[in-house]
Amino acid sequence: MNSAIETLAPYAFTALRQRKEALQAQGIELLDFGVGDPQDPTPAFIRQALTAALTPESRYPTSAGLPELRQAIAGWFGRRFGVTLDPDVHVLPANGSKEALFNLGLALLDDPRRGPQAVGVPELAYQVYADSARLHHAEVIPLPLDTDWLPDLNALTPDVLGRLRLLWLNYPNNPTGAVAPPSYYREVLALAERWDFYVASDEAYSELWYDSPPPSLLQTGLERAIVINTLSKRSNMTAYRSGLIAGDAQVLATLRNVRPRMGVATPEFIQQAARAAWEDEAHVTAQRLRYAERRQLFIEVLARKELVVDASAATFYLWVRVPERVAGRSSREFAEWLLERGIVVLPGEFLGARGAGHVRLALVPPLETCQRAVEILDSVL
Amino acid sequence: MNSAIETLAPYAFTALRQRKEALQAQGIELLDFGVGDPQDPTPAFIRQALTAALTPESRYPTSAGLPELRQAIAGWFGRRFGVTLDPDVHVLPANGSKEALFNLGLALLDDPRRGPQAVGVPELAYQVYADSARLHHAEVIPLPLDTDWLPDLNALTPDVLGRLRLLWLNYPNNPTGAVAPPSYYREVLALAERWDFYVASDEAYSELWYDSPPPSLLQTGLERAIVINTLSKRSNMTAYRSGLIAGDAQVLATLRNVRPRMGVATPEFIQQAARAAWEDEAHVTAQRLRYAERRQLFIEVLARKELVVDASAATFYLWVRVPERVAGRSSREFAEWLLERGIVVLPGEFLGARGAGHVRLALVPPLETCQRAVEILDSVL
Repeated sequence: MNSAIETLAPYAFTALRQRKEALQAQGIELLDFGVGDPQDPTPAFIRQALTAALTPESRYPTSAGLPELRQAIAGWFGRRFGVTLDPDVHVLPANGSKEALFNLGLALLDDPRRGPQAVGVPELAYQVYADSARLHHAEVIPLPLDTDWLPDLNALTPDVLGRLRLLWLNYPNNPTGAVAPPSYYREVLALAERWDFYVASDEAYSELWYDSPPPSLLQTGLERAIVINTLSKRSNMTAYRSGLIAGDAQVLATLRNVRPRMGVATPEFIQQAARAAWEDEAHVTAQRLRYAERRQLFIEVLARKELVVDASAATFYLWVRVPERVAGRSSREFAEWLLERGIVVLPGEFLGARGAGHVRLALVPPLETCQRAVEILDSVL
Repeated sequence: MNSAIETLAPYAFTALRQRKEALQAQGIELLDFGVGDPQDPTPAFIRQALTAALTPESRYPTSAGLPELRQAIAGWFGRRFGVTLDPDVHVLPANGSKEALFNLGLALLDDPRRGPQAVGVPELAYQVYADSARLHHAEVIPLPLDTDWLPDLNALTPDVLGRLRLLWLNYPNNPTGAVAPPSYYREVLALAERWDFYVASDEAYSELWYDSPPPSLLQTGLERAIVINTLSKRSNMTAYRSGLIAGDAQVLATLRNVRPRMGVATPEFIQQAARAAWEDEAHVTAQRLRYAERRQLFIEVLARKELVVDASAATFYLWVRVPERVAGRSSREFAEWLLERGIVVLPGEFLGARGAGHVRLALVPPLETCQRAVEILDSVL
């Protein structure tokens, strides 16, 4: 078997799910801000688009996807970011963003007998970037985060840069809610050109913002840039597994060659639902307002109790510093303390050592649940 | 990038699809027996099961799948093959069978720096078995077929067996329609135990039979055996991407660990449709009758014209020998000759050199189209 499997950490969300289910089986009522799994309904027009496309006769979907879906995605990039993409050259649909980012390793990483290869992953990040690198036999380089929660590019020595094949970014960021400025993207792509590596930007949270829409890596350039996005957060479509890959023409050409062999084609009835979702912004605006309302509740109670919220400019996460008055002051202990009071949060340590001083709150439960949680926080903090 | 990509043949079905579309764009009407893509409708009760599960609220599916789907699959194995499977130990849902068989390579093949590793693939086979092996940096060993169209195990030298990690089988077979007897499976699993490799059996066509139901590898044993099956052919659900992986407990445990990281979870509304499909046999019986009726038409005309049909005991394929009277006698030339007469078939050469003397007819078009094709054959052969 693949010996890299032994080096993988347990899949965190599986572990968290099991722990929660065990507590709930004991009859404990939990207000769950732990997992970033949107709970609001998928808009009816999207479900209707799926049902309308569910014909008696059907056929194998292609991994290249329906032209009208690629067109809808390119259109969205144009309207949202002012980026012009050719739907036949720069865009592919994906079977959800996890599939897309996991499988990027298969295409971009080589036979390890042909030389050393490394993948740069922020020290606090979604587990799958590193898991994919390890399972495809590449070295994982954890990148320290600077005070703005951005990977510190100065930490990349010439030695590491020489074997770097791929660098992962994720802004707006999970778990910190930090946003990367265009100047940072310019710096990264310049470095990628100088040292011949690709930059993959997971932009799953790009639409969940509060004050101003965050930029995309593709606004800085298409060459060496690969963006992965998804309808999971934007349109509450986690159940549908529908995302996109866009960017560098050569990488996309390689993916168009490799992906038909991989079984990653999305059912066409889902592609039609996805098309409807990318073509509409009204439901996204409405969803942003829902998160803003919940966020305001928490921001207020946390400020009143003198807890510090770091970053958290976008995404549906709040990145809350463990207060000094909590014994031990580790994120695990604070999370455990909150759990005993009925509130599930994610200990920052779950995502890496750098997260030890913070817990992550995912503002996904309905407003009423948020209000109850805020009342609890008001009384116990 | 992955240098194995350069060694891959163009994806055959993409090429075939493009060629057909080019001809159709010229206004040429084609009766298409080329691609094994079922055209009959998905039964209404399956579509209804999907629609009923398409709730406003939803969540991330898990790659472990819904317990009720795993139970339905285990139940089906019990009724169909008399094999007892523990749904929590021996069964996983897959996002279609192509995904399952492609990704098996990631789990079972190791870092190539740790030693040589080979994958055995029948010389005539679905392209993805070898593509997956190459993209995961293993050597591909093409296995010659014996006169029964079964991989000749005597061709496996001790040298090859020493580095063999995985052997692919596919019975009922695409393209030949051959069926493997239980004695062959016993021989293969005994060899696998002696030489420490896994046997992966793609049983996508197990339900499309005429005289008697073909066996499953799992009837011979679970250890070292991995079966992949799908609803694509059995229930006309190519569009849904839903299949299964079953067998060896240790391999399945590894897959339960690795697959949550890969983005291969099937949407739950599709899992509910899949559950309904595995729990029903009536629609499968009806579908078998449809294929039998079409097959009879072709068997008759081909016999009358003294064309030889080899194997073809199961699947919806007919494996037809290129007649002596066709100039050149290559499968490409015969296919081209038929194409000029409006009938699309797959040249056996497309699937490997051993197929050069045959063409493959996929009996997927409706009866009326089959009748028209038979009339053409009757007049031109």
